[in-house]
Amino acid sequence: MSKPKPCGVLTLLTDFGLKDPFVGVMKGVILGRFPDARIVDLCHGIRPQDLVEASFWMERSYSWFPDGTVHVAVVDPGVGSGRGTLAIHADGHYFVGPDNGLFSGVLARARDVEVRGIDADGLGLPEPSRTFHGRDVFAPVAAELASGHVAFRDIGAEKAPGISLDVPLPRRANGLVEGRVVTVDRFGNLITNIDQSLLADFDEPWVCVGRVERRLRSTYAEAEPGEYVGVINSFGTLELARRDSSAAQALGVGPGFEVSVRRGPASSPPDP
Amino acid sequence: MSKPKPCGVLTLLTDFGLKDPFVGVMKGVILGRFPDARIVDLCHGIRPQDLVEASFWMERSYSWFPDGTVHVAVVDPGVGSGRGTLAIHADGHYFVGPDNGLFSGVLARARDVEVRGIDADGLGLPEPSRTFHGRDVFAPVAAELASGHVAFRDIGAEKAPGISLDVPLPRRANGLVEGRVVTVDRFGNLITNIDQSLLADFDEPWVCVGRVERRLRSTYAEAEPGEYVGVINSFGTLELARRDSSAAQALGVGPGFEVSVRRGPASSPPDP
Amino acid sequence: MSKPKPCGVLTLLTDFGLKDPFVGVMKGVILGRFPDARIVDLCHGIRPQDLVEASFWMERSYSWFPDGTVHVAVVDPGVGSGRGTLAIHADGHYFVGPDNGLFSGVLARARDVEVRGIDADGLGLPEPSRTFHGRDVFAPVAAELASGHVAFRDIGAEKAPGISLDVPLPRRANGLVEGRVVTVDRFGNLITNIDQSLLADFDEPWVCVGRVERRLRSTYAEAEPGEYVGVINSFGTLELARRDSSAAQALGVGPGFEVSVRRGPASSPPDP
Repeated sequence: MSKPKPCGVLTLLTDFGLKDPFVGVMKGVILGRFPDARIVDLCHGIRPQDLVEASFWMERSYSWFPDGTVHVAVVDPGVGSGRGTLAIHADGHYFVGPDNGLFSGVLARARDVEVRGIDADGLGLPEPSRTFHGRDVFAPVAAELASGHVAFRDIGAEKAPGISLDVPLPRRANGLVEGRVVTVDRFGNLITNIDQSLLADFDEPWVCVGRVERRLRSTYAEAEPGEYVGVINSFGTLELARRDSSAAQALGVGPGFEVSVRRGPASSPPDP
Repeated sequence: MSKPKPCGVLTLLTDFGLKDPFVGVMKGVILGRFPDARIVDLCHGIRPQDLVEASFWMERSYSWFPDGTVHVAVVDPGVGSGRGTLAIHADGHYFVGPDNGLFSGVLARARDVEVRGIDADGLGLPEPSRTFHGRDVFAPVAAELASGHVAFRDIGAEKAPGISLDVPLPRRANGLVEGRVVTVDRFGNLITNIDQSLLADFDEPWVCVGRVERRLRSTYAEAEPGEYVGVINSFGTLELARRDSSAAQALGVGPGFEVSVRRGPASSPPDP
Repeated sequence: MSKPKPCGVLTLLTDFGLKDPFVGVMKGVILGRFPDARIVDLCHGIRPQDLVEASFWMERSYSWFPDGTVHVAVVDPGVGSGRGTLAIHADGHYFVGPDNGLFSGVLARARDVEVRGIDADGLGLPEPSRTFHGRDVFAPVAAELASGHVAFRDIGAEKAPGISLDVPLPRRANGLVEGRVVTVDRFGNLITNIDQSLLADFDEPWVCVGRVERRLRSTYAEAEPGEYVGVINSFGTLELARRDSSAAQALGVGPGFEVSVRRGPASSPPDP
């Protein structure tokens, strides 16, 4: 598969939030180098320094953008240390960010991958600050790439894919599938890393999160208001919701919490 | 009145918040179908599933955009159930979203209205997910409409305006006007659904919210710091503010709370 | 220095937050007058009516945008009173907003400055509301300026720079530098108004914030997780962070809190 031409769209995913001007200033830098950039905020609400959440959303979101989009991701606890940088081509999309596991999800699923380090000196970037490489390294590189001023192969030398996240992947064992909550959305839905493909041969999957056990349904609307409901969400992973309210709040459960799926109910009677 | 050509601007109003990538992904879908789209976030902080708040802001905001803007609104508690879909032309603007009352405000005030259902099959849309029609139905349809690829009349068959909100409208009774708080803004101002036209023949209107009663002023600056003040806000409805602080917090009042307007003070002495 | 042509980029800085449609509606007004506008949210999380924070971020952020950018800032506690309006050219950038001290930081540091009042009547603006000049005055003027429809000199008569903020600037006294926390970022880092230039002749600066005293480092990564660390941040001012957690929360410190810098440790032993 050959690499598509950049399409002029850039996305930004960070843990900066939107209350400060950090994201705005990155956009200023991009527009200074590429006035016709079309910049989309993918998401800035990643929990501070939560690489697992960032990697999950990056992996699950990017393919909804046009081929040739450049995705900038900055969740960067090691900024100012010796951590490396990455520019990636994966399945028709480009990615720019720190080499700290942030792109683990993308790299694990993509079929056509090329990874390079960023040669900041070779690209003529000014000396970066010690604390904001989103603005000083990743935004300029992404702008040069998205505008077509710099070709992907000229960003830096090819290198082996970088650091991976040190988190347990979902696994099948003893007829169960075990995974984890990776993010809680605004509605309090518990979104897990259990891909629907892992449940392909389950006739009637039951989801277990703490004391709650529920049969998988196909949409929220099949539950009564206030009832818990397991669904495969629109990003292809298992999620536990509570209709018209917050499952996370009601259960006191957040990122990292264990979730399992059985082939039928384990206990009886189920929780109300 | 003939329908204006789409102007290339789309707005998005949802209850998704901005911490997750749901809004970003909708923009990716739009840009994939309409690369020159100019997309504006109208508002994503609608309280989860609060159709009254969504309908209010949609009605009061849209006319500040250019004629031919396409407004996408997704507050969609019934997604995945059999609820219908809508594409609307109203007074020179287009609207796309679920048929659940979200556009009640727009429909109630517009003079020139045409309502259609979305024929997803006829438009060749891929099979949607069961939980995210914002991305899978409304974003693609809005992009096709805003780009001019699909004419409004080809989106689906004309139908009667859909479901209305089941909320009491403001009313005049016994010389009073009674309404409700519909939203609380970031400053804690209590914004009501009482349109200024209802107060047109009140010489000296007094606003009553719980224990607070205040004469209507023309601007916040007429109150002392910390003092409550009733004003007609910049969207044409009555609001109770507290200068330099939050009326909502001080009074413990939120959406749904009753508000009345009298022709003069009811009690004496007024609250401090 | 001559004034650059507007480059078509506008930024918005407000205390409106993003939960309500106030910012979205400003963008609608801008696009109505200037369809090709490229609008960037600089920051909408300024604490309600905090002119010191707004002035700080405006001063420290604008130069990251291309020359000829028009920056609209609306933190406007005096809206509806007689407070004046400003259009400013400073060092190749344009600024539009209320005359209330919001641009004090920009004006204090810029070398090439021209200040004008906005002649709303002369520009043919419709009668503004009494409570939302961001939408009714500043957005239209910025759009006309950024599009090139109206030249800077035609916005209104030249006037002396307006009202200044009534806050103590950082100062050197008794071998110390004293300043204040002006903003707390999403990570809980305490950002001060102490510019790095004030510390130029300090060999080994020590930062004191309440009971915490730390040697200045060059990056967060030099501290252990959970340890406090003073750094010059990427905007050129002193900041106290706590690695991988929130200094603001741990110390109970926020905007306005006093910070000092010494030429060495004052006390021993330092806090853990």
